[in-house]
Amino acid sequence: MFKIIITPKFGDVDGLKHITNTILADWFETARNDIFKFFTPDFDLSYEKWKLIMARTTYDFVGQMYLGKNVEIRTFVLKIGNSSFTVGHEAYQDEELKVKGEAVCVHFDFIEQKSRPIPEDIREKLEEHMV
Amino acid sequence: MFKIIITPKFGDVDGLKHITNTILADWFETARNDIFKFFTPDFDLSYEKWKLIMARTTYDFVGQMYLGKNVEIRTFVLKIGNSSFTVGHEAYQDEELKVKGEAVCVHFDFIEQKSRPIPEDIREKLEEHMV
Amino acid sequence: MFKIIITPKFGDVDGLKHITNTILADWFETARNDIFKFFTPDFDLSYEKWKLIMARTTYDFVGQMYLGKNVEIRTFVLKIGNSSFTVGHEAYQDEELKVKGEAVCVHFDFIEQKSRPIPEDIREKLEEHMV
Amino acid sequence: MFKIIITPKFGDVDGLKHITNTILADWFETARNDIFKFFTPDFDLSYEKWKLIMARTTYDFVGQMYLGKNVEIRTFVLKIGNSSFTVGHEAYQDEELKVKGEAVCVHFDFIEQKSRPIPEDIREKLEEHMV
Repeated sequence: MFKIIITPKFGDVDGLKHITNTILADWFETARNDIFKFFTPDFDLSYEKWKLIMARTTYDFVGQMYLGKNVEIRTFVLKIGNSSFTVGHEAYQDEELKVKGEAVCVHFDFIEQKSRPIPEDIREKLEEHMV
Repeated sequence: MFKIIITPKFGDVDGLKHITNTILADWFETARNDIFKFFTPDFDLSYEKWKLIMARTTYDFVGQMYLGKNVEIRTFVLKIGNSSFTVGHEAYQDEELKVKGEAVCVHFDFIEQKSRPIPEDIREKLEEHMV
Repeated sequence: MFKIIITPKFGDVDGLKHITNTILADWFETARNDIFKFFTPDFDLSYEKWKLIMARTTYDFVGQMYLGKNVEIRTFVLKIGNSSFTVGHEAYQDEELKVKGEAVCVHFDFIEQKSRPIPEDIREKLEEHMV
Repeated sequence: MFKIIITPKFGDVDGLKHITNTILADWFETARNDIFKFFTPDFDLSYEKWKLIMARTTYDFVGQMYLGKNVEIRTFVLKIGNSSFTVGHEAYQDEELKVKGEAVCVHFDFIEQKSRPIPEDIREKLEEHMV
């Protein structure tokens, strides 16, 4: 499991004075850096080097979060298929679970525009972070 | 069904030169204005007047979108429960479906911090936009 | 002068229930599509084709804007130098000026990583939109 | 001077594979948390408690930033007037200055919709962070 800390900013709050739902897309994406590194350690974004495309993301809003307190994002692997895998995310504030999410990532060849099996060495790294 | 047109901006594209996945959260939220109006026609964001909280959002990325062409967002109602309902969204570019999404919205009393049954007159309006 | 219409979305409002200042960066960038087209009509983002880099942006917040009403963004050219030019932006709500901004754009060669003189034919197009 | 560390996320990069200019608005706002605390230590966003409105922001893009390396944001006070003050921001990557910015903040009464002199005790705190 990976953990990152997010400090909410003023504009992350909406008119209802709680953290707005759409910003979780940004926070969970920030957390996926640790997963992206398995595939492209130097974050080279050329079609030759970048190998991941998103197929699906989901966000379950369990509780409200507020400005002024850090948020912990926990990230782990839920499922590994042939060419795709599912990342799980959880956002905690005050040590309470507030948002759960999933991201289905596909190992993808941007030049050929085709999905590709996950290489064995990366699969092993993903497995280490399964829950 | 509601339709809005989004013009992608330069920064909506990521390092892979396609529309980045997280911006769909913003685009579908823009499209929900038409639904929000049923509950709070004057968009008054006070706890007395605003009556919706998000419970869940999902995004299915079916195809890639690019800069330089408008995107049509179609929005409709998929399901109506006692206090919650599910909105469906579809994003089209070049008349092809590129992203599908759902948003589970709860009729919510922010003062009491409790969900409330959807009022009958609003339920009727939602029903008119069911598919 | 170019005009575009922006429909504020729920999350563009911050805890003070007015449009949050940072979103103007997005709105003015959307408005620059009309300027970007002069340089790269097909919005091809390859280093061979894209020719603009931002040197400076400014935002003057003259009045507050709110959810529920469209915003008109007016865009024009303020100054043209040898390799750079300054775009002006104004945001209106209820026909009142709410935000003014400037963007200094540089004609830039991303392969050589150097600024380049603005080509004569593009200079003429920019001049047509000077105020 | 205040320092925070930002980890760029995948979507912060644009089609030119560098950090996109508009995200600096978010990063500098995150850095202003330390300033906001002087005025509203508990981040209470009610009109009774929140006392700051933005009058102007500027961003000077000195160098390009990339994905995969943290960014340090340094924040300090440049000028203190009667009811307004100017915050300075600098973004560093690889220990090189990449973006400079300013934010003119006004001490503001949201109920009366009027600017107010900066209280003496807060002025002293701001002065401690002047450069």
